[in-house]
Amino acid sequence: MFSNIPSGSEIFTSDKPFAFQRGGCLPSLQLAYETFGQPNADCSNVVLLFTGLSPAAHVTSSSKDPSPGWWESIVGIGRPIDTNHWHVVCVNSLGSCKGSTGPASINPATDKPWRLDFPELTIEDIASSTNLLLEHLGIKNIAVVVGPSMGGMTALAWLKQNPGRASHLLAISTAAAAEPYAIAIRSLQREIICEDPHWQNGAYTEARWPQNGMRLARKIGMVSYRSSEEWRGRFGRDNQVRYPATAWGMNFAIESYLQASAERFIGQFDPASYIGLSRAMDWFDITRDPSKLCHSTDLPDTARVASALAGTELKSACIIGVQSDLLFPLHQQQQLADAFEACHSRVEFHAPSSLQGHDSFLVDFDNFGPIISQYFRNLDC
Amino acid sequence: MFSNIPSGSEIFTSDKPFAFQRGGCLPSLQLAYETFGQPNADCSNVVLLFTGLSPAAHVTSSSKDPSPGWWESIVGIGRPIDTNHWHVVCVNSLGSCKGSTGPASINPATDKPWRLDFPELTIEDIASSTNLLLEHLGIKNIAVVVGPSMGGMTALAWLKQNPGRASHLLAISTAAAAEPYAIAIRSLQREIICEDPHWQNGAYTEARWPQNGMRLARKIGMVSYRSSEEWRGRFGRDNQVRYPATAWGMNFAIESYLQASAERFIGQFDPASYIGLSRAMDWFDITRDPSKLCHSTDLPDTARVASALAGTELKSACIIGVQSDLLFPLHQQQQLADAFEACHSRVEFHAPSSLQGHDSFLVDFDNFGPIISQYFRNLDC
Repeated sequence: MFSNIPSGSEIFTSDKPFAFQRGGCLPSLQLAYETFGQPNADCSNVVLLFTGLSPAAHVTSSSKDPSPGWWESIVGIGRPIDTNHWHVVCVNSLGSCKGSTGPASINPATDKPWRLDFPELTIEDIASSTNLLLEHLGIKNIAVVVGPSMGGMTALAWLKQNPGRASHLLAISTAAAAEPYAIAIRSLQREIICEDPHWQNGAYTEARWPQNGMRLARKIGMVSYRSSEEWRGRFGRDNQVRYPATAWGMNFAIESYLQASAERFIGQFDPASYIGLSRAMDWFDITRDPSKLCHSTDLPDTARVASALAGTELKSACIIGVQSDLLFPLHQQQQLADAFEACHSRVEFHAPSSLQGHDSFLVDFDNFGPIISQYFRNLDC
Repeated sequence: MFSNIPSGSEIFTSDKPFAFQRGGCLPSLQLAYETFGQPNADCSNVVLLFTGLSPAAHVTSSSKDPSPGWWESIVGIGRPIDTNHWHVVCVNSLGSCKGSTGPASINPATDKPWRLDFPELTIEDIASSTNLLLEHLGIKNIAVVVGPSMGGMTALAWLKQNPGRASHLLAISTAAAAEPYAIAIRSLQREIICEDPHWQNGAYTEARWPQNGMRLARKIGMVSYRSSEEWRGRFGRDNQVRYPATAWGMNFAIESYLQASAERFIGQFDPASYIGLSRAMDWFDITRDPSKLCHSTDLPDTARVASALAGTELKSACIIGVQSDLLFPLHQQQQLADAFEACHSRVEFHAPSSLQGHDSFLVDFDNFGPIISQYFRNLDC
């Protein structure tokens, strides 16, 4: 069984059956999570953090796991989400492969990994499974729900499912529904994985891993996560000598950068889990019932998004996006801001001039740090 | 031998050896071309048209071949490049597979297709091979050199190689040098072709064609040729029923659109030829000597581009680009306009608000037609 659990992650096991929105059921499930900081007396300082597609629950370093987390510069003592004040709970998404149950987990009915037999996952399933963990932790209300990228979709789904349970939202580079351009890119990544001869309709083995497919999918990911502006300044027309030249290229520094990034990713993520999570993002539309099959529809307008989020009753929402994001374009952040405003929440909308595209929130601390820091400092909890 | 020659294309054969910039030589070569309209008495009305990566010489319909050409709406009688007035010569690029010699042609030394043994092609080779055809046609001077996309790079290379031979330039969505973002996308397309098990290091056969690689490369191409804005309005979240759903997706209309586009392309282009032409674009930098191996370098600034183009002595240049082009971003068109202005050419710079990205010149007649029409009407030849 493929698993890649950070050493500091706790595993919560729920023995209740878990039913998926589109059908299918797990007899039990596990969720990997990490917590940082302490809950205060009335448990009013909880920050619930949903992750993007690939990260684990290890959002920042801790005494249990001193290795840097995926948002090390934002979460921690004295950082913008200050764990001296906030009790941060970060969950590895249902369907992922970093400690939570997903396609890489063992199907008790067959004693083999679920792979393609795993129920069709939706963003709404990730959101609702989290409540099992919150119940286990004795957490009822959430001060701030936080989600970047896919985590932002999960945050929206959770808020819709749990009206009135959260006070504030920080949503970054996310969307109320997947747009066709993002669907095109993700669909291509998934198709490339499935074209790898080692994919074997999901019956890949450790010895014959679809690593070419995963490498190529990750490279497409990098092209969609970053921006032309960033790479222009960073790589120019520099050559590379790290890898041998090939018939297809590997002459330029940008090519070796993609290669190195992709090689780091290959062994870190289970292919079937990747496909399930990626597909869940395509299906996501906060204005629709996830249990229904897709219906042809326009992208939701702001009024429909506001109507879907009307029950959330947030005190405030902080929405951040960047112009250079190809995957979750800025107008989708503007739509979320407008929708929450229509829901009478106090809304902050920020569009920092980050050049790093969709990944900006991970790497552009100079722009993101102060915005997040100030938002959290001003919260009344 | 793979070949895909439009029925109206003429084949010119040169029996002189042709030496490539980076080494290697052809004992003879063929170039497929089509001409439209008639040369006038002093042959001062010649338009030399270089194509993008994939088109053949069949730019527009004719009595020889009434099927629509790849730029049907722009070239022809009464069209913006009016063949009642202009004598248009369009060449299938050296290295392509639509009648001109390239990796799909037979290597006389082995009686097999050249494939990876074809000399390393540069944009400058495409440009210089064209002079053999012009000599054959008795054409000395060119009124207007025209090139969109890769054809624009070829036009720049030809102008640099032939100082004073052309009077005017129409360059569309092209660049003085490839940027790292475009290199990343093209490199990925080539890598995907070479990862197809049928690629066989270039020894693919008709029965075992790397069609999965070509299909996926074309899909990546479409994502880089079009724009998120266009697809938002065109596809929204429409579903599709044209193809069966798969483990990786094929739920949405955008996915079936990509599939249909890619299927049309697979059998139309030879994989090794695609790789050679695509790589030539990465290598292109008008400010560098193409015979030298790559050197790490910044992208050229406008002064260096102007210096490289100083000898062209164009009377005028019309440069068009669009904001939604990911592959040849607008600032690269601005740089060309600035460089020709520094060379004392009269320069027109147009940035129409087309939503169709890099492909706009092929499909957005409403924006491109009037600009090109007016430019050609005002020329003093």
